[in-house]
Amino acid sequence: MPNAERFMDAALAEAEAAGKRGEVPIGAVLVVDNKIVARSGNTTRADHDVTAHAEISVIRKAAAALGQERLTGADLYVTLEPCTMCAAAISFGRIRRLYYGAEDPKGGGVDNGVRFFSQPTCHHAPDVYSGIGEREAARLLTEFFQAKRED
Amino acid sequence: MPNAERFMDAALAEAEAAGKRGEVPIGAVLVVDNKIVARSGNTTRADHDVTAHAEISVIRKAAAALGQERLTGADLYVTLEPCTMCAAAISFGRIRRLYYGAEDPKGGGVDNGVRFFSQPTCHHAPDVYSGIGEREAARLLTEFFQAKRED
Repeated sequence: MPNAERFMDAALAEAEAAGKRGEVPIGAVLVVDNKIVARSGNTTRADHDVTAHAEISVIRKAAAALGQERLTGADLYVTLEPCTMCAAAISFGRIRRLYYGAEDPKGGGVDNGVRFFSQPTCHHAPDVYSGIGEREAARLLTEFFQAKRED
Repeated sequence: MPNAERFMDAALAEAEAAGKRGEVPIGAVLVVDNKIVARSGNTTRADHDVTAHAEISVIRKAAAALGQERLTGADLYVTLEPCTMCAAAISFGRIRRLYYGAEDPKGGGVDNGVRFFSQPTCHHAPDVYSGIGEREAARLLTEFFQAKRED
């Protein structure tokens, strides 16, 4: 299996685990030198923290583990297109490459919404690759919200 | 002294303290029912955390203190116009009113840049009041970066 798919599978596993905890099923891993240095699902409910998106969590975890603020050379894999908040955090963290699964027309900030990486107030933009693991990422979200509506 | 100025003074004190720690001098307080429930300066360097802006920190601290994710009815005072990341976090946190000091044409995301609160992908916008404590907020930043250039 190519590396990108392998890392996205790890992000999908985090998303699935988040869903089982009652969190919106989105997951992310952060990769440096072909190794996962941080992994997380959404923890907004458990942490009572609107900023605890999977992307923010892996950036914080990786920076703490590596003892450095900027993650130059790091690649982020996340199951859903990052929101505006996370897109800006990815830029601040100097992430090299962003791989995301499904697009998010309602809340995304990369290829939808504010398209932050194309803005003059964005001072670092990662290379962006989308669509890897898209179907599975979208399925997890669709099933989660269907189950919630049926509650 | 009117309340808004009093709360902005508390945010300015956090900014000044941050500058003395070698952090970019920006500070914030979060107010609920006319009481400060969280206060913070920037801690990005100390925490090795690009997401540790003053606004994110007070939102996280207040949510932890109150045991709730959304901060409906809370007012945020911050010395500089929030960046794109923080503007989105303020929206997610359902902050009622945002008071900021100085504008930030290079990095702001409220009245500059992506103007997040006016975007269709923004699902809650606070009332925004700017200019309170503007001169002092800008002075702290100017002096900090001047001193850095002279280092």
